[in-house]
Amino acid sequence: MKDIDPEEMARRIWLTDKIRQVLWNYGFQMLEPSPVENLETLEAKSGPTIRDEIYWFKDKAERNLGLRFDLTVGMTRMIANRFDLPEPIKISSIGGVWRYDEPQFARYRYFTQWDAEIYGVADPSADAEIIALSSDILESVGLKDHLVKISNRKLIEGFLRGLGIQSQNDLDHLIRIIDKMGKIGSEQAEREFTRAGLSKDKVKRILGFADMGGDPDKVLGELESKLPKGDMIHQGFKELSGTINRVESLGKKNKIRIDLGIVRGISYYDGTVFEAYDSEGEDVGAVLGGGRFDKLCKIYGKRDMPATGVAGGYERLMLSLERKDLFPDIQQGPQVFVVTVNETVWNEAVKVVQQLRGQGIRADYDLKQRPLSKQLEYADALRVRVSLVLGPREIKEGNVRLKDMKTGQEKNVKLTTVVDEIQKTLERTS
Amino acid sequence: MKDIDPEEMARRIWLTDKIRQVLWNYGFQMLEPSPVENLETLEAKSGPTIRDEIYWFKDKAERNLGLRFDLTVGMTRMIANRFDLPEPIKISSIGGVWRYDEPQFARYRYFTQWDAEIYGVADPSADAEIIALSSDILESVGLKDHLVKISNRKLIEGFLRGLGIQSQNDLDHLIRIIDKMGKIGSEQAEREFTRAGLSKDKVKRILGFADMGGDPDKVLGELESKLPKGDMIHQGFKELSGTINRVESLGKKNKIRIDLGIVRGISYYDGTVFEAYDSEGEDVGAVLGGGRFDKLCKIYGKRDMPATGVAGGYERLMLSLERKDLFPDIQQGPQVFVVTVNETVWNEAVKVVQQLRGQGIRADYDLKQRPLSKQLEYADALRVRVSLVLGPREIKEGNVRLKDMKTGQEKNVKLTTVVDEIQKTLERTS
Repeated sequence: MKDIDPEEMARRIWLTDKIRQVLWNYGFQMLEPSPVENLETLEAKSGPTIRDEIYWFKDKAERNLGLRFDLTVGMTRMIANRFDLPEPIKISSIGGVWRYDEPQFARYRYFTQWDAEIYGVADPSADAEIIALSSDILESVGLKDHLVKISNRKLIEGFLRGLGIQSQNDLDHLIRIIDKMGKIGSEQAEREFTRAGLSKDKVKRILGFADMGGDPDKVLGELESKLPKGDMIHQGFKELSGTINRVESLGKKNKIRIDLGIVRGISYYDGTVFEAYDSEGEDVGAVLGGGRFDKLCKIYGKRDMPATGVAGGYERLMLSLERKDLFPDIQQGPQVFVVTVNETVWNEAVKVVQQLRGQGIRADYDLKQRPLSKQLEYADALRVRVSLVLGPREIKEGNVRLKDMKTGQEKNVKLTTVVDEIQKTLERTS
Repeated sequence: MKDIDPEEMARRIWLTDKIRQVLWNYGFQMLEPSPVENLETLEAKSGPTIRDEIYWFKDKAERNLGLRFDLTVGMTRMIANRFDLPEPIKISSIGGVWRYDEPQFARYRYFTQWDAEIYGVADPSADAEIIALSSDILESVGLKDHLVKISNRKLIEGFLRGLGIQSQNDLDHLIRIIDKMGKIGSEQAEREFTRAGLSKDKVKRILGFADMGGDPDKVLGELESKLPKGDMIHQGFKELSGTINRVESLGKKNKIRIDLGIVRGISYYDGTVFEAYDSEGEDVGAVLGGGRFDKLCKIYGKRDMPATGVAGGYERLMLSLERKDLFPDIQQGPQVFVVTVNETVWNEAVKVVQQLRGQGIRADYDLKQRPLSKQLEYADALRVRVSLVLGPREIKEGNVRLKDMKTGQEKNVKLTTVVDEIQKTLERTS
């Protein structure tokens, strides 16, 4: 299990503020589902196999409980019986989720997700809204160079059905192999397809299908003629082109690429699916992904609503931002340290500290009451911007020595104006 | 288990921003320990009886794991081997914790705590800093009318030892009875003391002891003469008066009361202990509490440091603030809704929405493309401040109709200046 140290925490808080602002700008309201769910809720759509991938246990009343593995399930459970909420319902959440994975590069057993969902809209306008939101979230944290790869579950499912694969289990299994193709490579995928009983020819056709895509302006028309016929594929294509059309209205068409290899592994998706990648860091994996899940509400409640949404992991996004050095220099520690020459000036020093804190300035002093040199050493380790030195002589003259630790400049300032002087010094940097 | 709906979430986000700002002002750095701990870590200080009070389970590798029941244990484990951090170490955390309690008034099985700890300072200056921080956190969220009740574990422990109670188990048991006296009442406490084997006389003396306290200016001197003699009591009194002295330097003496009935139930406390109450809502229980735990670092690591800290529950604090109507009116939903007269103006409407969002204004439009009246109904339900109505005629004239939903005033504004006009309208409220 993973602890979050102050440096990482500062970045997470920064990230949360950024992401939340974009979510709010797009009209999403934050909420949070319980971290612990009844096991049957978690199994409802994914089936009992999910037990192998999550943390679950019996509580003292012998009920089976599990830690949430995503936010979508809980969010959907929360609103599936809320007949009072007017459609569309736009909600979002940020929180920790647990998966009993083998830990691997950029994957953790406990990680943080942000999640946004729209309930009640069947039209691709909602998928487009989700995709524009996703792109704007990446922009807001500085990851301007990203692409959203988009497809539709009905395309792959229609295509596989056309190959004679009919059972939902087989379909889900093959879709999961396609989903991880980017990670395991096409050779390994080929072996897994063969093991699933597919002929060489069918494997080749699946790989060819998953390889289709490109700039929507270039490939959308071409794709229509290339795709096999069939109702499901037709519907999938209509949704795909409709979504792209709406994304264009939202000013985000330049950020999307069609990629029929995008299928998403989770079985509740049934329409538009997409994943976003840092253009120069695809090896990190998708920094967010989502899609349409029209049947999930019905499973958790009486209110049957179409739905579409997106979720992104903090850990991967942070890795992408760190690689590109996109995080600002965020300091959590004190900005000002008040140094006391000796114990006699303690009360005055504390008074100044409390004044600064009251003005929203991060200020500290030495609780251990060490000698001057030790205090300065500590202030240095904290990387404060300003040191104030108070001694009996200074106090007597109503002064304090202010040292700008960045420029090295020192000056005496009046105790009565010290807050203003510090505010000026701090503003000089920002 | 408890879900958090948008209205409560808005308040929690507001609360977190307020609390975090005060924590930062006081020089505390945020971090977060893992939500899941090895069971033995959770048991290390509290003993195996803690199993009955927490959520724990075996993972698939047959390891015993437990959900954290507070943040102090994890925070202490995190830094107990970090020899690189200069003392004092001031850290804080905000997060969810789990307890397998019987749910009761203002108590939940999953709740959120804020927590601040200082490691490396034996002097009461650190306890005073924690108490001043606590009071300023309550002030910052508007709960100005509060009192911090303070005592010292060495006083009660020394007193009980003086009554002939020597085993740590017996001491812990009696201290837990005293701790819950406020909740169960003194009659029930008397019965529990008697059941623990105490004579009538001893019970009376304990009740008398726990009843001592008052305004520190008035009772501190008096208390010194009243307290029984003994090294432990002497040390406890020294720490108590030292803490009060330092709290006075920090400008917070008017917020504290001595109360020897404050002992804290958790067994790791060994010095200063305190709890804060809303002066007009003591029935909610303490809104925060804390104290000194000098021996905990040694249990989790090689770095032996004195420590003191505080934790507060969100749920109780929110209850106190709600009772007094101290939360501001926080809206998460969109501020502006762009209404389209018909489908032909969709692209223009979306463009305006995206412009507003780009300026940090929470804006939305109808993803369901319903008739005008339905859109207005939805905008109304969302309690937006401004509606913009776009129709073909308006677009042709380069205009948009702006309606202030608060004042009811309507006017035509140029599409080119609509963002400015909206910003002006929104500022008018705030």
